[in-house]
Amino acid sequence: MESYDVVIIGTGAAGLSAALYAGRYRLKTLAIGKEFGGETATAGVIHNYPGVADVDGYDLMKIMREQAEGVGSEIIDGEVTEVRGDQGCFIIVAGGKEYSAGTIIFALGTKRRHLGLPNEKELTARGVHYCITCDGPLYTGKTIAVVGGGDASVKGVNLAGEYAEKIYLIVMDKKITAEPINYQQMERLGNKVEILYETEVKEIIGSEKLEHLVLSKPFSGSTNLAVDGLFVEIGALPNVLLPQSLGVLLDSRGYIATDAMMKTNVPGIFAAGDTVNLFGRFKQDVTAVAMGAVAATSSYEHVKQNGNVCVIHQRVRA
Amino acid sequence: MESYDVVIIGTGAAGLSAALYAGRYRLKTLAIGKEFGGETATAGVIHNYPGVADVDGYDLMKIMREQAEGVGSEIIDGEVTEVRGDQGCFIIVAGGKEYSAGTIIFALGTKRRHLGLPNEKELTARGVHYCITCDGPLYTGKTIAVVGGGDASVKGVNLAGEYAEKIYLIVMDKKITAEPINYQQMERLGNKVEILYETEVKEIIGSEKLEHLVLSKPFSGSTNLAVDGLFVEIGALPNVLLPQSLGVLLDSRGYIATDAMMKTNVPGIFAAGDTVNLFGRFKQDVTAVAMGAVAATSSYEHVKQNGNVCVIHQRVRA
Repeated sequence: MESYDVVIIGTGAAGLSAALYAGRYRLKTLAIGKEFGGETATAGVIHNYPGVADVDGYDLMKIMREQAEGVGSEIIDGEVTEVRGDQGCFIIVAGGKEYSAGTIIFALGTKRRHLGLPNEKELTARGVHYCITCDGPLYTGKTIAVVGGGDASVKGVNLAGEYAEKIYLIVMDKKITAEPINYQQMERLGNKVEILYETEVKEIIGSEKLEHLVLSKPFSGSTNLAVDGLFVEIGALPNVLLPQSLGVLLDSRGYIATDAMMKTNVPGIFAAGDTVNLFGRFKQDVTAVAMGAVAATSSYEHVKQNGNVCVIHQRVRA
Repeated sequence: MESYDVVIIGTGAAGLSAALYAGRYRLKTLAIGKEFGGETATAGVIHNYPGVADVDGYDLMKIMREQAEGVGSEIIDGEVTEVRGDQGCFIIVAGGKEYSAGTIIFALGTKRRHLGLPNEKELTARGVHYCITCDGPLYTGKTIAVVGGGDASVKGVNLAGEYAEKIYLIVMDKKITAEPINYQQMERLGNKVEILYETEVKEIIGSEKLEHLVLSKPFSGSTNLAVDGLFVEIGALPNVLLPQSLGVLLDSRGYIATDAMMKTNVPGIFAAGDTVNLFGRFKQDVTAVAMGAVAATSSYEHVKQNGNVCVIHQRVRA
């Protein structure tokens, strides 16, 4: 079994930054990710990453990957299906292979929330979507609904504004919470955008593909709203099952609990990125990369102090 | 007097990132800095900023400046000589002009530490220096001493290795504490570098210019060490006088005390970058930009809740 000083689980901005720093610390480093580039890779153009003017998220992630590989870190695609501890050494299972690691950095990000309605799963990718950047262009010249009310939904509307004919933004609350610059951009879309406040989607109707929505409140005299596409932008849930299986504790909001050095309650386990609430709701690339770098630093300190426990065990057994 | 929602004091990585985010939040934003680009601008080539492969520090800062100006933030050169509070509104004095601000972000970084020896000040820039990136090339083909033992001193030796003939690294302790990748690079310089452990510089000798050093311990049979240049790389002290004048509290190590949202004890005052110990001794561009972005977020929240107090006062007075 190949043994690493640190295995980073997740290859988004936090994971790749951790891989860059861990490599610079001369740790034997492996990063495993199911979706290369994480949220950022599918975020479209990034305008607010300091030091890189207007860059496609995927391209930004490619640069980070090259930087990390440039200092000797290995980056592979794969889904980690199991992690377990063995006397201070961690075993990571991915794609049928096992790896051992003296330390782990969880940088698994979040998973988009679903509405939880009947038909939602059946019609996913047949009219129901969770990523406007990815699937928005399918609706050029068409009518779509975006369910949301937060910044991501407003950014999604702005992006969709470039090709959709008509956009309904369906907001459960009385108001929208978005970055002012994004809100103002949405306002400039004028009549193309219709905001339905205090409204929920009650039903998703369609057999082969999405046909219409049933709303909780009439709009233009009807609770039926005919749309070609529905984009669900109602936030995300942190991916915490794997760390929980190792006894890692969560905070009161269900995210991984860490200190500012990204240490969890389990020695040798660190976390970074959107699975952590260090900066509250502010979850951006700029904070993900910082947390990744700090997690790598703490991992390095841990290995420096304790050695790589897996390697020590192997020596004892041999 | 021109009034701003936020005045950022410092235009290094933390300050410029704060200016970028504050501008995106549509805050009326001014950033004032004595040394544009801060430490980063004179750091030489940056290898470890995620998303930007091997970039000159000054160029990286120029990009951040353009990004911040692109969202409407004003960036000016100038030394802030005074800040004072006036009923929740802050007055900032720089270059003989006064500005008012509803919130302040301190991003003043640190100041290089000196040895505190006689002659040190007199011979500064006449053989005594504090920035190898800036002044190192003056010593092409010459002999220099670097006083240090931390990562910055090792990076400095590596840089100087490109042009100096001989480099003495004078280390007070028994060992060097540096990033392994930097230490290994220094080792590759071979005989060019001589490390003098458990040694201090006791005297700096020279009249018009530096002639030699007197060491605390003989080297090659003498406590006199003839060098053309001396570079002092013994760390830095945080710039805290201005925030202290407003009642901002420091932590036990003398840095500005903040929570993870970069709030100080004084409402409306935030801090970011190397003047803050959020990530302990780990002080890098990657963390500076994150802290700047978070400070801008907290500043925005403050202005959203309280309004810009300065503007409110002006209205009442008018």
